[in-house]
Amino acid sequence: MDALVLEKKLDLSLRDFPIEREEEKLGPRDVRIKLHTVGICGSDVHYYTHGKIGPFVVREPMILGHEASGTVIEVGSEVSALKEGDRVCMEPGIPDPNSRATRLGKYNVDPAVRFWATPPVHGILRPTCVHPETFTFKLPDNVSFAEAAMVEPLAVGVHAATKARIKPGDIAVVLGAGPIGLVTALSALAGGCARVYVSDLAEKKLEIAESLSRAIIGVQAGRDDLAERVKRDTDGWGADILFEASGSPKAASTVFEPLAPGGCVVMIGGQSDPISYDTGAAMIREARVENIFRYAHVFPRCLAMLSSGAIDVQPLITRKFEFKDSVHAFEIAASAPPADVKMQIELPQ
Amino acid sequence: MDALVLEKKLDLSLRDFPIEREEEKLGPRDVRIKLHTVGICGSDVHYYTHGKIGPFVVREPMILGHEASGTVIEVGSEVSALKEGDRVCMEPGIPDPNSRATRLGKYNVDPAVRFWATPPVHGILRPTCVHPETFTFKLPDNVSFAEAAMVEPLAVGVHAATKARIKPGDIAVVLGAGPIGLVTALSALAGGCARVYVSDLAEKKLEIAESLSRAIIGVQAGRDDLAERVKRDTDGWGADILFEASGSPKAASTVFEPLAPGGCVVMIGGQSDPISYDTGAAMIREARVENIFRYAHVFPRCLAMLSSGAIDVQPLITRKFEFKDSVHAFEIAASAPPADVKMQIELPQ
Amino acid sequence: MDALVLEKKLDLSLRDFPIEREEEKLGPRDVRIKLHTVGICGSDVHYYTHGKIGPFVVREPMILGHEASGTVIEVGSEVSALKEGDRVCMEPGIPDPNSRATRLGKYNVDPAVRFWATPPVHGILRPTCVHPETFTFKLPDNVSFAEAAMVEPLAVGVHAATKARIKPGDIAVVLGAGPIGLVTALSALAGGCARVYVSDLAEKKLEIAESLSRAIIGVQAGRDDLAERVKRDTDGWGADILFEASGSPKAASTVFEPLAPGGCVVMIGGQSDPISYDTGAAMIREARVENIFRYAHVFPRCLAMLSSGAIDVQPLITRKFEFKDSVHAFEIAASAPPADVKMQIELPQ
Amino acid sequence: MDALVLEKKLDLSLRDFPIEREEEKLGPRDVRIKLHTVGICGSDVHYYTHGKIGPFVVREPMILGHEASGTVIEVGSEVSALKEGDRVCMEPGIPDPNSRATRLGKYNVDPAVRFWATPPVHGILRPTCVHPETFTFKLPDNVSFAEAAMVEPLAVGVHAATKARIKPGDIAVVLGAGPIGLVTALSALAGGCARVYVSDLAEKKLEIAESLSRAIIGVQAGRDDLAERVKRDTDGWGADILFEASGSPKAASTVFEPLAPGGCVVMIGGQSDPISYDTGAAMIREARVENIFRYAHVFPRCLAMLSSGAIDVQPLITRKFEFKDSVHAFEIAASAPPADVKMQIELPQ
Repeated sequence: MDALVLEKKLDLSLRDFPIEREEEKLGPRDVRIKLHTVGICGSDVHYYTHGKIGPFVVREPMILGHEASGTVIEVGSEVSALKEGDRVCMEPGIPDPNSRATRLGKYNVDPAVRFWATPPVHGILRPTCVHPETFTFKLPDNVSFAEAAMVEPLAVGVHAATKARIKPGDIAVVLGAGPIGLVTALSALAGGCARVYVSDLAEKKLEIAESLSRAIIGVQAGRDDLAERVKRDTDGWGADILFEASGSPKAASTVFEPLAPGGCVVMIGGQSDPISYDTGAAMIREARVENIFRYAHVFPRCLAMLSSGAIDVQPLITRKFEFKDSVHAFEIAASAPPADVKMQIELPQ
Repeated sequence: MDALVLEKKLDLSLRDFPIEREEEKLGPRDVRIKLHTVGICGSDVHYYTHGKIGPFVVREPMILGHEASGTVIEVGSEVSALKEGDRVCMEPGIPDPNSRATRLGKYNVDPAVRFWATPPVHGILRPTCVHPETFTFKLPDNVSFAEAAMVEPLAVGVHAATKARIKPGDIAVVLGAGPIGLVTALSALAGGCARVYVSDLAEKKLEIAESLSRAIIGVQAGRDDLAERVKRDTDGWGADILFEASGSPKAASTVFEPLAPGGCVVMIGGQSDPISYDTGAAMIREARVENIFRYAHVFPRCLAMLSSGAIDVQPLITRKFEFKDSVHAFEIAASAPPADVKMQIELPQ
Repeated sequence: MDALVLEKKLDLSLRDFPIEREEEKLGPRDVRIKLHTVGICGSDVHYYTHGKIGPFVVREPMILGHEASGTVIEVGSEVSALKEGDRVCMEPGIPDPNSRATRLGKYNVDPAVRFWATPPVHGILRPTCVHPETFTFKLPDNVSFAEAAMVEPLAVGVHAATKARIKPGDIAVVLGAGPIGLVTALSALAGGCARVYVSDLAEKKLEIAESLSRAIIGVQAGRDDLAERVKRDTDGWGADILFEASGSPKAASTVFEPLAPGGCVVMIGGQSDPISYDTGAAMIREARVENIFRYAHVFPRCLAMLSSGAIDVQPLITRKFEFKDSVHAFEIAASAPPADVKMQIELPQ
Repeated sequence: MDALVLEKKLDLSLRDFPIEREEEKLGPRDVRIKLHTVGICGSDVHYYTHGKIGPFVVREPMILGHEASGTVIEVGSEVSALKEGDRVCMEPGIPDPNSRATRLGKYNVDPAVRFWATPPVHGILRPTCVHPETFTFKLPDNVSFAEAAMVEPLAVGVHAATKARIKPGDIAVVLGAGPIGLVTALSALAGGCARVYVSDLAEKKLEIAESLSRAIIGVQAGRDDLAERVKRDTDGWGADILFEASGSPKAASTVFEPLAPGGCVVMIGGQSDPISYDTGAAMIREARVENIFRYAHVFPRCLAMLSSGAIDVQPLITRKFEFKDSVHAFEIAASAPPADVKMQIELPQ
């Protein structure tokens, strides 16, 4: 079947690609899904432009894509919660169900997780895939395929907001106004924050951030002193929570400055090297730092929040492509800086 | 000065009332406030109709009112955070600053708290009052006096939502659609819930509840089976959180039925007698039960949420009276069942 | 094979009993265990004397026993953590690995749990059994079979202490000095409490309790006022945590009296009927109530604590019987009040 | 009166020293204390050898000492919990009672805290001092002055153990076997850990550590691979909690290696410069990092644990000096590496 294949670094093709028989076999607790919409993630683009992310190196041609929605077209013999025709979205990582981490309910930190479009596991920019029922979620009627394909990145923000243990009325800061920064800001607001300061260098991104809610305040990091601004607005107290979503080592080294005594820092943005960590600044605030990794158990929560209107991701979906234009879509996505937040690819139905 | 005085049960008068000199003396950390708006609370009405609440009996004429906003007209010598002319709202309970509970940050459970309009402490349906700076909060520019006088009841809901430790995307139930039930539903949504089921017998109240947000679903308790409804909507799982805000012993005895495994019940509604508690139902779910008492440290949080739009209490303010019509206002408030959610009295400025 | 069979209420026999082939089949992730020591639990005795516990009725002959240790004698093809000859103890409840509760890490609240010696599931007072590797735990070298057979009741106490979220130096109360009360007191101390008050009517039990640690203080419930005693010893503050382990409805109705503001009550003892719950007393303290059900993920923790000396259960093992005397052992165990804490049965090796 | 005065760096004298009248004035809520025992802390020694700690520089002669016990000899007019003759120990930091941090119950992160023997505040190596009743704690009869003077350093360990939120049966690691490392190890065990690995370079310190409990395991950091050792002992899982108490930047940069998925790192040891922080290693474990600063509300907890035997600090008190030999005591304490854990000075009674 046709698939968007990363042959090697900077070499993408939309071509017929034979999937291993094993991977296509429908187990008793699996469902077969016809893909509908697939979002383009920064990691997809990074594999395209660099051929690797940290220790994960693309050594064989690999299908890209892991933010996906679609329709169930076949169910395994023991599947009970889903049926043919159900509109669904899928969680892209499958852990070992018998690992200690999984049994403790923390499957995201199971080292054995197999994650779509992470070598050597294929992604789902292809017509169909087979997936466990357990990680496939039925869409509420009022959630579109496009919104459903946003659940994967949104899940990162919602998981971060969960780990932060927000108290209603908290003041938050988000470093970075890229797609993850924006879903984090939305999640922080939906999760109880009264107000979120989003900091970035790109004016355009800050405009988008501020357009999402009047409770979001953009701070231009090159011009304004973030810590000073937050303290001025909080009678000198600081922010209760800071989410680091920029991935910038420089930003990451300043996380405690705007933070209130007893505040919490959530590290979301991946860093290729160790960062500089000011223990003195952390200690005098008794800061709690939560380091998060993807998400666990939040897809149904995201769907419930999209359905009820608690979170609206539609303003983040800024451009759509047809599947046949996938290579072109990646070329655009790879050209920096992107004026778009989230690009999606629609597969033929 | 003129004040609304509860002379004794069912006997209210608006008359000149001499306040003890001690109470009117401005200490170095106190402010003097000209009252602007005062909400009528169910407890005010209950003192009017019954002359007591539990162990608190009205034995001497007592001024009513504890939900208040106003303007600072004088400040003590050591006051630093407020100045003359500041628009403010006030927390009505003042604890002993040296008690163990207060020093632990839990001043609401300090037995020595002195609370407005709770015998023998006077309320603030009068032109001015003196209050500690620490429990007086400056209003953001875009929060009106009327909204500010809603902070006191809202604080109960926000405190309940805080104690529940909501995770983003939780499903909640609120038993009771009175003023406290409604502010709790709003707080639960603002605090991270995806959806809130509000249960009551009065259709009219459910209509009001549903009008507040499309994420609020009314359940008519006499006609529908709440537990069944919640389970049907959650694939049999149940609600993550249940807030008991009805004060009805019958409702309180059913709190575990709609609850999911690992769920949390928050007891808000006061009960005059012990309730029946089904330990078996609580245990098989490993339910956590939080019993709350008023609030602590949430007034600034409420103001931040009102200012940013995270919570909107304006639809709950359904009728206003002039101070000179206070007695009439209480007569209306005491006639059951009230078609109104929150009545407020405005003092002459 | 020979087994201790509860034929029906008050009718026990040690006789050959054919176990269903299905139950004896070794799956790929199962181990076969030769039983060594089995403790007699109050629930075993209750099935013997009453033929039922709540909704669980003995309708067919059922093998008793669920507190067990033994030796692995055969392992399934995919077993990796255990091997033939390993000394082990076993967790008696097996949940559905695909249930929502199990995947969240809360398998104890999975309604589908199958639990040894709970109708219609057989217990293990028999020579061998088959059990999943996942719920079978290798013993440290310095933990005896007798101690290992105590892990099951100890797990209840350790789980209760975990749910209480003890802070180091907390003061605790345990209502009830039966076996569960005593393991709870030991767990509370090992889990951080400075001091534990154990309350019971039976002087003999209190003597045993006090002999376990000088940090345990017995309170004779008929003679002394528990709440008054605790408050006197804590400058009027009260206990930080109260564990209800008596199962007595009268005791359960008084749980808030000795409790400090902000304190926690852990309900362990099963109650056949709803109890009387004083919401007023609970609210003015903002009490948190944790209702627990068995345990989850604590067997390895118990073994680590027994091995390191953090907890010593040996004083609780007060009498041993040979397997051939099992019926007699139950007769003794059923004669109230037992002078013994825990009786164990040793199987022939 | 005579006092141990740090005139300037490396210049100590025991001499008559006039204390400001203001400091010696007994306020209504103060007590006057005759000092009995004062421990020598690493920070006292550091001021002696370096004349400063971070931003705190000794610019004027300053009295040293902040780990103290003594006897109440006079009480202010409003003191109610203490009386003349009471044996007490004292918390050395006094916050602003009206600060936001203090009112939230987190007075240790109040920037306005005045702390004994931290410039420009004098310490208490002198015959008497005046202290607020609120921060003065009556000793249980079975706690000696020497043990009571250990409460201050112990409080750091107990606070660290509290912040870690230990679950009973957790496995912990402590980096550093100095006095703080040792009290942390004891606190971790008393707080619920089954086993604590203590890592240091000094064999002598590890011997002392292991002598404290059979649940403490020394790891020689230069010879053994700590992470490997911990993982080998935990079936590859790792430690649930790691306490960094070494203050070594090298050690601090390795905190995630021995840590289990979902584990917690508690940063106790002060660092003069930012450390290197491996976000990748932190994220794949979803590590929580708690940065602590001194302690809050734990002195009474420490006393309760010393009194009940939950913690025994006596083996840590390795040498005592008379007040007249104070200068000599500091010379010994400053000669590295100290064979002693804790040296104390006794004042004439």
